[in-house]
Formats: sequence, C-alpha cells, structure tokens
Amino acid sequence: MAYTIGVDYGTLSGRAVVVRVSDGEEVGAAVHEYRHGVIKSTLPATGQQLKPDWALQDPEDYLDVLRTAVPEAVRAAGIDPSEVVGIATDFTACTVLPVLNDGTPLCRTPEFGTRPHAYVKLWKHHAAQPQADRITELAHRRGEPWIDRYGGKISSEWQFAKALQVLEEDPEVYAATERWIEAADWIVWQLCGRETRNACTAGYKGIHQDGAYPSKDYLAELNPGFADFADTRLAHPISALGERAGGLTAEAAGWTGLPEGIAVAIGNVDAHVTSPAAKAVGEGQMLLVMGTSTCHVMNGVELKAVPGICGVVDGGIMAGLYGYEAGQSGVGDIFGWYVDSVGQSHDELSRPAAEQPAGAHGLIALDWQSGNRSVLVDHHLSGVIAGLTLATRPFEIYKALIEATAYGTRKIIETFEAAGVPVTELVAAGGLKRNPLVMQIYADVLRRPFGVATSEQAPALGSAIHAAVAAGAYPDVATAAEAMGRMEPSVWTPDTANADVYDRLYAEYEELHDYFGRTSGTLHRLRRIRNEAL
Amino acid sequence: MAYTIGVDYGTLSGRAVVVRVSDGEEVGAAVHEYRHGVIKSTLPATGQQLKPDWALQDPEDYLDVLRTAVPEAVRAAGIDPSEVVGIATDFTACTVLPVLNDGTPLCRTPEFGTRPHAYVKLWKHHAAQPQADRITELAHRRGEPWIDRYGGKISSEWQFAKALQVLEEDPEVYAATERWIEAADWIVWQLCGRETRNACTAGYKGIHQDGAYPSKDYLAELNPGFADFADTRLAHPISALGERAGGLTAEAAGWTGLPEGIAVAIGNVDAHVTSPAAKAVGEGQMLLVMGTSTCHVMNGVELKAVPGICGVVDGGIMAGLYGYEAGQSGVGDIFGWYVDSVGQSHDELSRPAAEQPAGAHGLIALDWQSGNRSVLVDHHLSGVIAGLTLATRPFEIYKALIEATAYGTRKIIETFEAAGVPVTELVAAGGLKRNPLVMQIYADVLRRPFGVATSEQAPALGSAIHAAVAAGAYPDVATAAEAMGRMEPSVWTPDTANADVYDRLYAEYEELHDYFGRTSGTLHRLRRIRNEAL
Repeated sequence: MAYTIGVDYGTLSGRAVVVRVSDGEEVGAAVHEYRHGVIKSTLPATGQQLKPDWALQDPEDYLDVLRTAVPEAVRAAGIDPSEVVGIATDFTACTVLPVLNDGTPLCRTPEFGTRPHAYVKLWKHHAAQPQADRITELAHRRGEPWIDRYGGKISSEWQFAKALQVLEEDPEVYAATERWIEAADWIVWQLCGRETRNACTAGYKGIHQDGAYPSKDYLAELNPGFADFADTRLAHPISALGERAGGLTAEAAGWTGLPEGIAVAIGNVDAHVTSPAAKAVGEGQMLLVMGTSTCHVMNGVELKAVPGICGVVDGGIMAGLYGYEAGQSGVGDIFGWYVDSVGQSHDELSRPAAEQPAGAHGLIALDWQSGNRSVLVDHHLSGVIAGLTLATRPFEIYKALIEATAYGTRKIIETFEAAGVPVTELVAAGGLKRNPLVMQIYADVLRRPFGVATSEQAPALGSAIHAAVAAGAYPDVATAAEAMGRMEPSVWTPDTANADVYDRLYAEYEELHDYFGRTSGTLHRLRRIRNEAL
Repeated sequence: MAYTIGVDYGTLSGRAVVVRVSDGEEVGAAVHEYRHGVIKSTLPATGQQLKPDWALQDPEDYLDVLRTAVPEAVRAAGIDPSEVVGIATDFTACTVLPVLNDGTPLCRTPEFGTRPHAYVKLWKHHAAQPQADRITELAHRRGEPWIDRYGGKISSEWQFAKALQVLEEDPEVYAATERWIEAADWIVWQLCGRETRNACTAGYKGIHQDGAYPSKDYLAELNPGFADFADTRLAHPISALGERAGGLTAEAAGWTGLPEGIAVAIGNVDAHVTSPAAKAVGEGQMLLVMGTSTCHVMNGVELKAVPGICGVVDGGIMAGLYGYEAGQSGVGDIFGWYVDSVGQSHDELSRPAAEQPAGAHGLIALDWQSGNRSVLVDHHLSGVIAGLTLATRPFEIYKALIEATAYGTRKIIETFEAAGVPVTELVAAGGLKRNPLVMQIYADVLRRPFGVATSEQAPALGSAIHAAVAAGAYPDVATAAEAMGRMEPSVWTPDTANADVYDRLYAEYEELHDYFGRTSGTLHRLRRIRNEAL
C-alpha cells in the first residue's frame, strides 16, 4: 500500500490529508489553525497599527502546519509513515513574501522583524491598489501584449503590485529582498531545500507569459528603481504542475515524521489543484470553488482573450492545456454578512426563500459587497439592492443576494462563451456545494447541470494527486485524477420555469451591472466620500 | 370662557380636542379607535376577499368618533358643554364614498351593503391606478389646462380615478351613486344636516380649478358613461375654509352632547389644517407633516406650475392664497420597516447613527419603498440601497434611509424653487418632529432652519381654530392662527460641515433618482415580474 500526503494551506489554517494512491481514498486528516491568523490591525512584533486594507501573515505558521497537522494526519490514518511516498502542497494566492537567497523570510531577520513590509502579504492585502492601477494603465498605454491574458487588468492582489508597494513605501525592505516568492513556492523550498517556481502562480499572479516576465523597459517606466525587479527577484526556471521539486530534506522529515527523500511536488494553488480532485479537467468543464468567495477554473485547448478574467496561463491548471481562471470576490461572505445584519440564521432564511416562487420578491441585487473580481476587476465597487418595498422580508433579500452571486457567475460564463470558450458543465467544490438553496438557484440561473466534487477536502486531495504524480505512481495528472478524483455529475438540474423567470431578472442584473460597474461613477464616489469621512 | 372642538379623523382612529378660543390652550382630548380599522383583506359584511391594493372603511366608525370621543374630551376638559361655541373636523384625503341625495352611504343600504365598491375608499386604496393612468394620459393628449396644477399627473388616490373604477368594475353601484363625496364633507353633512364642499379637497382631490370640474367632453372620452359624472355627482358650490357650514343638528347634538345650533365649520384635510396650528401660513414657510408619510404644504401669493407636486389650489390652505401641496408616500414607515427587518429598536440604531460622521457609511438610498409621490408621481417605483460592503452595519443602513427621505424632501423643495416658489423656512409637525436624529439630518441636508409645531395634536388644534372662525370669534383664519397656533422657530439648525458632505451625497441621490425614476425601467419591470410570480 502506498500513500501520499496533500497539505492545503488556507487563509486561517492548514489541513493535511493522507490519501491512498491506488484509489484516492482519504484515510486520515488533521487541521492546524495558524497562531497569528490574519494580521490586519496591529503587527504582533511591535503593536504597530496597520493601515486599512492591509492583510499580513507570519510564515512560521506555515511551518507549524508541517510540524503538527502532518504527523497528526498520519497518526489518524493509522498507517506507517514509511508507506508515504510523496507530499504536495497547495496555497492561497497571491500570498507572497520577501526572502533572502537562502529562503529566510525577511520578517525572520533581526533587522526587519519590526517592519510590516517584511511580512507575508496575504492574498487579501488590498493596499496596493494605486500601484495596480498604474501597472494596468501603463500596460495599456504601452500596448504590452500580456495585458489581454489578464482580462485587461492587473489585480492589486498580485506579485507586481505588492512588490511595487514595498519599493515605494519601504525601500529598505525592498533593497534587502533577494527573492520575491509565492508562499506556494516558499513552502516547497522548506520541504525539499531547493527553490522552484510553479507554472500556476508564475502565470496567474506573476505576469509570466510566453516564457517571460514584463520587460525591464516597462518596469523602469513604472518606477526606475523597479527596472530589475523581475531579473533579480523573480527570475527562475518555471516548473510544470505535478513535477518532482526534490526529495524531502532531513530537517523537513524531522518536522513531519515522514521518510527523508520522498517526492516533494512543485507548489500549487488551492482552487486550481481542486480540478483533478473533482475530475473537472476536460474542455468545457468549469470547476467552481464556492466558499466565502468563488474561484472559477477551467482547461481549454485553445488560447483566447477573455475580457475581465483573472488570467489564462499555459499549464496553469494542467501541463499541456491553457488554464483559465475567473473569480467572484464575495459570495458566501455576503450571505454571512446579511445573516449577521438581521440576526436570523441561514436556516431560518433559507426555508421560506426556497418555498417562494422565483421572482416573487421583486428584487435585484449586485453582488459587489466585497468588490468585483470578474469581469469588471474593480475592488472599489460595492453592493446594490433594488426593488425594496415595505412588504420586503429579510428572507427575500437573502434570496436576492444568493441569486446575485449566481448572476455574477452567469456573467463570467457568458463572457467566456462570447470569447469562444464554451462552458458545458459545472462542478461545485467548496463549502457552498452542500447548500441546496444555493445550488438549485445556481442550476436555475445558469441553465446547466451542476455536478459536485465528492471529497470534503478536495484541495488536499488534489495536492495528494499531484504528490502521486511527482512520486511516479502515475504518468500524469490526468491519469491520476481519473484514478484518485471523485465527482458526482448532474446533482442539480435546472427547473425550466424558474430558469425562464431568471432570464428576465438576469437582464435587469446586466443593466445594473453595466450602469453601476461601467457608466456611473456613483459607487466610486461613495467610497471616496466614506474614506474622507473616516 | 369659550371653547371650540377640533376632531381629527386619521387612518385608524379619530381624536377630539377641546380648545380655549382665547389662546388655543388644549384643555381636554379623547381618541376613538375605528372598530373596522382599514378594511383591506376581506369585507366584514360578507367575508368576500378584496384584491391587492384595496383599502376601504366603514363610515359608521366616523360617527362613533362623534358619539364617544367628543363627549369624552369634553368630560376630560372639565368644562360645561354649553361653553362650546363651535366644532370643526379634518380628515384623511382623498377618502371618498358614494352616497344618496340625503347623505346615506350606499354601503348602509340593504341593496349595496354586500358590495365592496359601495364602501368608503380610503386614501391609500391604490387599485384605481389603470384609471389614473388614463386620466393623466388623456389630459395631456387633449391639452387640458388643469393638468399642470397637479404636477402633470392625477393620482390613483383621487376622486376621479376612484369613481371611474367604480363605474368600470361595478356599474350598478355607480348608477346608484347620487353623490360622490369626500368623507371630509360627508362628516360635516352629518353634523349640520346640509351638504357642503370644501375648497381644499375639491381642489386637491377633485380637479376643481378656476371654478370648474373637467369638461363633459373630456369625461366622455375617458368613458362615455362617465360624461355626466361631475355634473350629477360632484356639482355643488365650493365653500372657503373656516366658513360656517351650518348649525349643529339636534341629532348630532344628541351624539356629541354639545349644544344644538353651534357653528359647524366647512370640512378640511389633516395636513392642510395643521398650517395655522403651526403658525406656518406665511409665504415661503413650508409645513412638513412628518409621520409614516410626509405632506408638504405651503401658501403662495402667485400661481406657479410646479412639476410633480400634488397640487396647487386657490384657497386650498387659506382663503385668498394659493395653497401648494407635495408629498412623500413613505417616510416613517420606511424606518419602521427596516427596524422590523433587523430586529433592533429605533434607539439601538439611532445612537451609533448619530455618532457616525456624515458620509462615513458610504451609502446612498432611494426612499421609494412605498413609491414616489412628489416629484415623480409614480407609485410603482421601489427602494434602492447602493454602496453596501461587508463592513456595512444595520445602523448605517438605517441612517442612509433617514437621509434618503431628507433628500426626497430636498428634491421637492428644489423643484418648488426652480419653479419660482421660494422656500425659506421649514416647520415640522407629526410624530417625527420628536426624533432628534431625523430632525438634525433634515436640517443638515436641507440647509435651512427647522422650527417645530408645539402642539402634540396639531391637526385637531387646527380644526379648533377653524371652528373658532366659523363661530365668529375671529375675523379670519390668519388672525385666529396668530392667537391660537403655536410654533417654536429654528429648533434645529444646519451643521455646515455635515451640510457640505450632504451636498455631495445629494448629487449622487439625484443621479440615482433620475436613473431609476426616469431613465431605467428596471423598477417597473421588477414589479411586473413580482406580480406575475405571485
């Protein structure tokens, strides 16, 4: 019997799962909550106040997952550690940190431990928006060929915006940064003692396209001090997903209790690694990882420019295919926000919402309480609810918010199709896949069969699949996914009568989407007034 | 010592107040709740289901107020009934009923007691919208001169729309209707035994302008059977407000315990009668009666066409001046609706809302949860909230809703001023005048000093003022108001810093007002989808 271990690094905790290589059976798991969680108000080392929109992490928390969750999962599985043939990890992204040439995080050096910019910038650190705006604007002005691969906009969440913020706000930290690396790659470095760069984050978060980063000229025009950023701090050969990064070091074997020298796979990202776990790797099969936010990932044979998506990357999900990614920045957290507002439970609101006929609430909402990732790529938008009357009840608003997120997904799917990338089948993963109200509304709004990833820890399973490939147990990820992945197709199917009503409501959504997202500057001005008042 | 009695007929109850003629001191009061309240789901006589948007009343409830509240108020005042020299009433409007030539309500006849259309149609009976639309459309098509006096739109709440609905839905009731009369005039008929028609409801609710009702030709084009409506069922000399309608009949003296033959004043409307009670009768002094909805009334020396107001009527508030009226169909009931939605109290929401700087919530709302009366005159609009984020708290939405109603008032005031009717001072009456959060926001948004009517039962006081004039104690209403009315000026004054922020937010309100109210059909389509789904 051979096993691999998948470690899924989330926003608040890391989860290790032990998986049987032959059939993907998950035989043991353990979770470790990060001691520092998300650092967003004060820096623990100094008590220093952080500005709004900051979100940091402490890399020591990631190592703690290896020290605690991995051995615990092996114990829970009741297997002998010697039966483990490989380990792989997946991470939130873009979660990125400055390190020295030997991989030491700058925040772990005595000189920089007190400097906020020396810490890990978590994916939801949104304070580099001014830099992101300039990056996008300059790319269009210069006609950079890569800007279309990112739907025409570079996010403030990504590597270049975050690094440029460091340069401009703390030049000393920037000068001391020898490598600027995704946590996804940094953790692999800690496991195998060797720096690697994975195709997924390099492409989606690092603007690495057609074998190159943005040019020195372009970077110099952004900021003269930024000219050599890619050459000095990023440059490294890119590795395909599922490749072997190296063997587990003695030190990492000590942390994890696993055999020294077993295969360590190239780094990966939580959403993308889920595709093989959910067997959603074929053309036209879109995986929706639906949780607090939603990530849409899909393979395509051809390269197409899809406006407003997060990115299209050669080998970004599976080697040899173009990986498309889009996203909605607020989904489950919008429902949670509303539940908190009205002091009723999801259950109390869901029951009457499910019974009410589609359209009977007379409402339409825009799902931008956390901004809009695709297809507008604008984190400064905000939510709208229209159609309120004195007869409107909380469960109706709750339902309208769920529908709004479904319309948001429909907008993304229709944008893919308009660009020549057909979407024929949907597969859900993430916490919301267990919510029947949400899933039925999505099936109705999207008019497509909706399957469900069966594993309750699909990202970790996806990592374990990649570990099996890195260990040589399967020739490639597609074959491993066929043997180890699990998906139940067409769990939810559209109700035609509801779908007809939702077509009409979606037309209203589209009108408000374009008005508030493109024509009117109201939402931006409201944010400006708010920021000035605070 | 001489006293008069003012009786204020509201939506759910009638209130009688005994007032000293010399100085307006209120010496006793009593309230009677209507036994039938608002009849909106089933007709009590038959159990018959009523359609949506219907709202009826039983006129017997009005007589019960005379039988119970009036004698109780006199008892509470501790005066001798012989000291009472006059009585006057004010009513909700347009609240209208079909009666025989002797004043008998059709619903009290054996033949028609089971027919919904034979009952009083309360002001908020909104089921005559199709008729109102045709009335407006035809007036514009024919270029009727009176349509501009009503801001370009005739409301479904008014006499002609409601009567045309009767003709078209129950022709037998229409045929049996000998007089179509406001409850405001019907109650005076019951008191003095003589039919009269007051200038206020005839003008604002009856399309009586420049001495005439709409022409026979016009009515025939609406519906051939409606051609003689005004000639047969409305026609009657119009009486000025404050005139003596007649003497109290023996029967009414029996009901009320008051001396037979004392002065009964011409009928009046609750909002308009409040102006003298609040001493808000001068040019540029706008009275806002702020409760579940808000009514704006103001005298003007000149006749101007103000778009979207409810009406301008010669002598509509005081004889010899042009009375302007505008309105917001939802105000306090929007705040109440939100409080119910989130399960927190007004107090819990008001405290943090008052502490937060203006604009800090980043929100803008449209106050149309109950439609828009002025200046869009569209009851099929609905509410909108924009700028929501995951950080938005319920008290912030609550504050945004209060602000939205203040913007709605500002829109009305700016429309008056643009039409050449300046508004220099505001006076508040109604329940919301006691709400400091609401009043301060209004003063800030409107940038004008805001006085407050001191009486807690201002409409009844206003009626008592009219009774004093009808009894000959004062030569006219203005003189009586000076002696008997009470108002504290400039209780609330604008905070300039807040007012500057609100100027910017009001610009956003205006943009959404025009987009949702004029350009986009979204809110109408949402209502249509809702109605079809239900």
